[in-house]
Amino acid sequence: MKKLINDPARVTDESVEGFGLVHADLVTVHTDPMFVVRNGAPVAGKVGLVSGGGSGHEPLHAGFVGLGMLDAAVPGAMFTSPTPDAIAPATVAANGGRGVLHIVKNYTGDVLNFETAAELAEADGIEVRTVIVNDDVAVQDSLYTAGRRGVAGTVAVEKIAGAAAERGDDLAGVAAIAERVIANVRTMGVALEACTVPHAGVPSFDLTDEEIEIGIGIHGEPGRHRIPMAPADEITAMLTTPVLDDLGIAGGEQVLLLVNGMGGTPLSELYVVYRAARRLVEARGATVARSLVGNYVTSLEMQGCSVTVLRLDDEMTALWDAPVHTAALRW
Amino acid sequence: MKKLINDPARVTDESVEGFGLVHADLVTVHTDPMFVVRNGAPVAGKVGLVSGGGSGHEPLHAGFVGLGMLDAAVPGAMFTSPTPDAIAPATVAANGGRGVLHIVKNYTGDVLNFETAAELAEADGIEVRTVIVNDDVAVQDSLYTAGRRGVAGTVAVEKIAGAAAERGDDLAGVAAIAERVIANVRTMGVALEACTVPHAGVPSFDLTDEEIEIGIGIHGEPGRHRIPMAPADEITAMLTTPVLDDLGIAGGEQVLLLVNGMGGTPLSELYVVYRAARRLVEARGATVARSLVGNYVTSLEMQGCSVTVLRLDDEMTALWDAPVHTAALRW
Repeated sequence: MKKLINDPARVTDESVEGFGLVHADLVTVHTDPMFVVRNGAPVAGKVGLVSGGGSGHEPLHAGFVGLGMLDAAVPGAMFTSPTPDAIAPATVAANGGRGVLHIVKNYTGDVLNFETAAELAEADGIEVRTVIVNDDVAVQDSLYTAGRRGVAGTVAVEKIAGAAAERGDDLAGVAAIAERVIANVRTMGVALEACTVPHAGVPSFDLTDEEIEIGIGIHGEPGRHRIPMAPADEITAMLTTPVLDDLGIAGGEQVLLLVNGMGGTPLSELYVVYRAARRLVEARGATVARSLVGNYVTSLEMQGCSVTVLRLDDEMTALWDAPVHTAALRW
Repeated sequence: MKKLINDPARVTDESVEGFGLVHADLVTVHTDPMFVVRNGAPVAGKVGLVSGGGSGHEPLHAGFVGLGMLDAAVPGAMFTSPTPDAIAPATVAANGGRGVLHIVKNYTGDVLNFETAAELAEADGIEVRTVIVNDDVAVQDSLYTAGRRGVAGTVAVEKIAGAAAERGDDLAGVAAIAERVIANVRTMGVALEACTVPHAGVPSFDLTDEEIEIGIGIHGEPGRHRIPMAPADEITAMLTTPVLDDLGIAGGEQVLLLVNGMGGTPLSELYVVYRAARRLVEARGATVARSLVGNYVTSLEMQGCSVTVLRLDDEMTALWDAPVHTAALRW
């Protein structure tokens, strides 16, 4: 294993410390327990947004802390859920008096730990609502999941719910728009090469030089099937068609198209995939009204990508366009 | 070779086409010959900035076209210099009547082709000045270079010169500030794993499972030496100390610290390197006044990173902070 780390047991701590130094204008890093808080939080009178999950998916979630998105993020160890004793104080730190929304990707550990943390925060008098992101159409149940996994669609949930909170919606309203995003966003991914979790020291799965895995999870969980390497346009169709079918995208609709890199794939290839995915959306008579291409929900150095489609309505589009000022998204 | 491409001969065309679709609000892609132009260019009364080089280093250069940075970028084929017949019309497209600055990374092919293009543009009555970026301290001459290579420091040159052009400096003034950045910026990189150029089909060099290369170039050109894998803090010192020494950074100085990913290294590791590099700067009594961490000048899916230090003065800091609105840098 060759990695730019010092000690597998310290990689998350050192990485988040570095993140906090670079982005000291945006966030403050709390240690022991570790969480990342937006400077100026809690924002009085604003619903707070908290997310988190295992590390190794950067810039998710700490990279989305800031104006118009999250108030706090809780990084667990690599590919490991954060614990309630970190999520609960992050929830307190995010509470501006109008309650806190937990945005949780659907993994059993995350769901349980956020649930316990919500109970702790509620015992302190903080109203907490929770939404579960489950956008991955690849498999129904998975290695760490009852039901579908939460993957790159999380970015859209955090952005749009964050904008709703920023404009002053109450907790029920912010939760409702988050649920509307979740109901309208779907994702499917592919892996060309696995990644290696530092404390494991070996790749999380093996692919031959001629083989790729369609429907991969962001922790290397098995997907739908392994196939021989194929041209990008064919692979993109294998990802995009199930997403469009599951959403039932029809002519005349407007969508957000996100092509997300898994961490180890060149940006140039993501644009090749975007080009192909956009043609498939347009072939249905739908319009790509908004786009995002880059590494947003990664899996360490995994090579591959995912395609996410969000069915937009006018309100979601306006909230997507609203100002955001975070380490990883800014406009 | 597993890559998200269709045809090695078409990858740059398809990738730039995808880029243009995603960023249609910022840029227009011209084909045959291919170059990328800022929407609204030429900006009347503004010095135009043009850069370019082989593809495979994305987001460089097209990702830096927009307000406050480049007016046009010319992508060559993968790791191959763009030709004068593409650079010349890009220069025309960037000329707002006050001349054009060519920002060229120091590779023999790039230097020659930009020189020929400058002659073509000058024959059309456009005043052209050229600056050569040569920030890589690793080796004096290289596989494709007489003198030092131009690498990640290019981002600082393009950002700061772009801001000077945007505020209305004349061609001599923009060239002078670009030269001041070049005189004060140094970089050194490391590779953990090589990348594969699509039309070659095999890795550009070989490293064993226990070996890394210090001083690597962004095309996989040989560096200073190969060493056994080491902790991130030790590797970071091997990159940062030569950079600080070459610049002669002393106590009381202010610097910009850029930790640049080569494309296949997780963001979490880049923050670990940043943390270590920052300590080394501070150990000299200097201050990290500005920071940038991410994939800016890549080498396809190469694993590794580079450390860049720019000695700042008040004017350079103000120009760095000036608004920028491009695909890859935005504030």
